Amino acid sequence: MSFSNQIQAVAYCRTPYKQKFGIPRQPGLVSAARGFVELVPPFNQIDAVRGLEQYSHLWLLFCFHENLAAGWKTTVRPPRLGGNEKLGVFATRSTFRPNGIGQSVVKLHAVHTRNGKVSLEISGMDLLDGTPIIDIKPYIPFSDSIENAQGGIAQEAPVLANVSFSGQAQKQLEQYQQNPAYPRLAELIEGVLAQDPRPAYKKAKADPKLYQVALYDLDILWVITDTGIEVTELRASQVGKTVQADKQPAPLSPNQS
Amino acid sequence: MSFSNQIQAVAYCRTPYKQKFGIPRQPGLVSAARGFVELVPPFNQIDAVRGLEQYSHLWLLFCFHENLAAGWKTTVRPPRLGGNEKLGVFATRSTFRPNGIGQSVVKLHAVHTRNGKVSLEISGMDLLDGTPIIDIKPYIPFSDSIENAQGGIAQEAPVLANVSFSGQAQKQLEQYQQNPAYPRLAELIEGVLAQDPRPAYKKAKADPKLYQVALYDLDILWVITDTGIEVTELRASQVGKTVQADKQPAPLSPNQS
Repeated sequence: MSFSNQIQAVAYCRTPYKQKFGIPRQPGLVSAARGFVELVPPFNQIDAVRGLEQYSHLWLLFCFHENLAAGWKTTVRPPRLGGNEKLGVFATRSTFRPNGIGQSVVKLHAVHTRNGKVSLEISGMDLLDGTPIIDIKPYIPFSDSIENAQGGIAQEAPVLANVSFSGQAQKQLEQYQQNPAYPRLAELIEGVLAQDPRPAYKKAKADPKLYQVALYDLDILWVITDTGIEVTELRASQVGKTVQADKQPAPLSPNQS
Repeated sequence: MSFSNQIQAVAYCRTPYKQKFGIPRQPGLVSAARGFVELVPPFNQIDAVRGLEQYSHLWLLFCFHENLAAGWKTTVRPPRLGGNEKLGVFATRSTFRPNGIGQSVVKLHAVHTRNGKVSLEISGMDLLDGTPIIDIKPYIPFSDSIENAQGGIAQEAPVLANVSFSGQAQKQLEQYQQNPAYPRLAELIEGVLAQDPRPAYKKAKADPKLYQVALYDLDILWVITDTGIEVTELRASQVGKTVQADKQPAPLSPNQS
């Protein structure tokens, strides 16, 4: 018996996450992350989402489009286990998987149907900006929410790091916050960095590097301190740099800053 | 921006459900339904499921393979609303949807790795026997289980019908139950029929028809009574009939039985 099928995007997701580095490792961890699911023809019909506003949460099925070319791996080393233990790809939510399909639950805030276009305003997604959405389904509490499910290594939400802003970063933050292009900016930065986006093998070591994550069109620079994570600078993204940062986690040496 | 991708089966699901008519409309409703997810090459490697046994529940992504040819519809009439109200396809779990992908949570009982083959023993699935599985992911309680989600028309599990067996059916049941090919047969029949598998528009009317559902290789015949559903006969499937029943709900006139 064999089976294969062609799938296509029904929508694209707009999010503040412009590079993979820094995206929370599960949905729901950073509620300040607001975004939109923009339906594309022939699916962007008001009728296709009729009744959806009755639901508080949605499932998005999507493609790990930036990882498709890399294919899948039989085993992966989950960040939670410090990168020391291998688990099977089907025992994880690894992004390098057969068929490259991801599944995330997000909160639904509003269904917008303006000028014949349809978009869904959501929060809590863990998706790269531009991610192709291949299906949208309502979250059905009585079957999807399982009270006593046992979750192996992922039973509890990750421990959060303490996040602070340097004096300079705090001033820059206050300026950028006045711009409506950056809604809930402080909460978003704190939420993203509290997850400690570094690769797990770094966490046991002293780490003098300067890191960067891209949120909206801003670069957020940060360092590891004795007590947690300190944001040292916020600045407009330099496009070339952001594109490069997209390819891998982006440590910068301090004298680049 | 456009996107399309080829997907393939990583496994096939073995279930007692041999036809669409009678399959519960959500997973988890009939826990007596036991089945197997049988991985296929090159995915049937013990390493690919390493660590999966730590989880109590799994997500299966699958294809509505028997509906793909029929395509998708912008709106559907959910059975819960009596077939009178239209909802958008993305506001339902309708099986006639873009990309034809379904998503079900199931209980994991065991990971079998015998003779180099890998199969997962599951229950509570709402899948047709032979359904192609395109991904297997662990159920992660802290992000998947949302305590206060609001569920529109699907906030509560469906009301169950009362199920009884006629004297003849009770005797047949006791005989078939001695055969290990039919595990938990009484519970499975009761669970399936308690959902009342008839099309919603039938429910408001007197209904003298004789219905049939196929479970394992048995045909279960039943009627509607004043107080619920009565099973009138259990018998070995007649292959030709089962194939035909697959195409649509299967009322039989009483003199056919």
